[in-house]
Amino acid sequence: MKLNKISTLAPKKFAKEKTKKELQKLKFELEELQNLLFAEGKHSILIIIQGMDASGKDGAVKNVFEAVNPMGCRVTPFKEPSELEKKHDFLWRVHPHVPEKGMIQIFNRSHYEAVLVERIHELSPEKMISQRYAQINDFERLLKQTETHVLKFYMHVSKEEQLKRLNERLSDPSKMWKHDDNDIKERDLWKDYMHAYEDVFEKCSEIEWHIVPSDQNWFKEYYIAKKVVELLRSLDMKYPGLKK
Amino acid sequence: MKLNKISTLAPKKFAKEKTKKELQKLKFELEELQNLLFAEGKHSILIIIQGMDASGKDGAVKNVFEAVNPMGCRVTPFKEPSELEKKHDFLWRVHPHVPEKGMIQIFNRSHYEAVLVERIHELSPEKMISQRYAQINDFERLLKQTETHVLKFYMHVSKEEQLKRLNERLSDPSKMWKHDDNDIKERDLWKDYMHAYEDVFEKCSEIEWHIVPSDQNWFKEYYIAKKVVELLRSLDMKYPGLKK
Repeated sequence: MKLNKISTLAPKKFAKEKTKKELQKLKFELEELQNLLFAEGKHSILIIIQGMDASGKDGAVKNVFEAVNPMGCRVTPFKEPSELEKKHDFLWRVHPHVPEKGMIQIFNRSHYEAVLVERIHELSPEKMISQRYAQINDFERLLKQTETHVLKFYMHVSKEEQLKRLNERLSDPSKMWKHDDNDIKERDLWKDYMHAYEDVFEKCSEIEWHIVPSDQNWFKEYYIAKKVVELLRSLDMKYPGLKK
Repeated sequence: MKLNKISTLAPKKFAKEKTKKELQKLKFELEELQNLLFAEGKHSILIIIQGMDASGKDGAVKNVFEAVNPMGCRVTPFKEPSELEKKHDFLWRVHPHVPEKGMIQIFNRSHYEAVLVERIHELSPEKMISQRYAQINDFERLLKQTETHVLKFYMHVSKEEQLKRLNERLSDPSKMWKHDDNDIKERDLWKDYMHAYEDVFEKCSEIEWHIVPSDQNWFKEYYIAKKVVELLRSLDMKYPGLKK
């Protein structure tokens, strides 16, 4: 599997305006289904969002889940580990945030950073990093077997689109707070990141990865909303009756 | 492996008074080694203590670790799961308590309750319980691979010694707070528990189990202190020099 063989654009059959209308419908349905998920309290949903800087992770969270009741939906970002977190196994900071029954939990970045940035910058010994793929599979199998439904999305952007977005952060006052000099430096490592992601998709396929064409935000949001709604529909949920 | 084939008494070669003196020496050494563990901050120690009611788990914690600086040693008891804990996988409440580098962590009961009391009282679906052995092995392998040294102790008491101790709780005012009518009822399930423990020792042997003859407290404490000290000695620790 080679990421540079996969398009970062919407497939031809998707027209922008029509797809945006579809997205609106999906968001209404998501709102209702999330309410049902919460009320029934039988299933839990974990959504893992990974992608390069400026690939649109924050936007996906905002624009797909804005209609959802925040009481039943939590977002946890995983940034650089703290000193205390570094003194534990890499899943220690992640496990407490998996969702209880009834909840949707979104990971904005995740335990996968431990085999991406940590691998590329050699932040942990090589042997430790190579063991993590199997450890991730074990962890995700535990979640699956305990009725947590996991959706994994990779926001697939082109290097050119990323540059365009990083430059917007330098010129658009409403985006400047997102600028980080470091993101520009990390661009030099683009190929290494693509290779590290390809390894992730191959080695951590216990739960399917969705490669989301993400150069156009409207398609990325539609794609994610659709997958989430399809999963929720498949759960055959019912509102519980009166408590006995 | 049959627990009723294993003695609950100290091997003949151990004389009570001499062993108690040895225990004192071990406790002094433990105090020093724990200080070194904390100062060096490279390794972490997880001690899991399992056993029937009144098998002496609390006493083992108190009498072996009383000399240790509590700053570097934490004890977490695992009782019946809360409503929130039940809404997650069974390792969710456990993982946050694994020790960071430099620390000794003691689990007084542990994730093993999920394949002991929960199995015997059918508190979770059978299929879920049967999956937990492999999930425990995966979890303990993660700890081992991330430099957490795990010691697992089973406090092995006879059914007669247990009855004697439970009766003491009814007559000795200093022990009455430990009495629970339920412990007497659970005695009827003794054979089921022994069988469930035998399954644990067979299926979760990724990390060695120590079966501690526990009818005599002096031997039980000596046994545990010795294993802990031997582990700490083996780590080849050094005080770090001045910070650069």
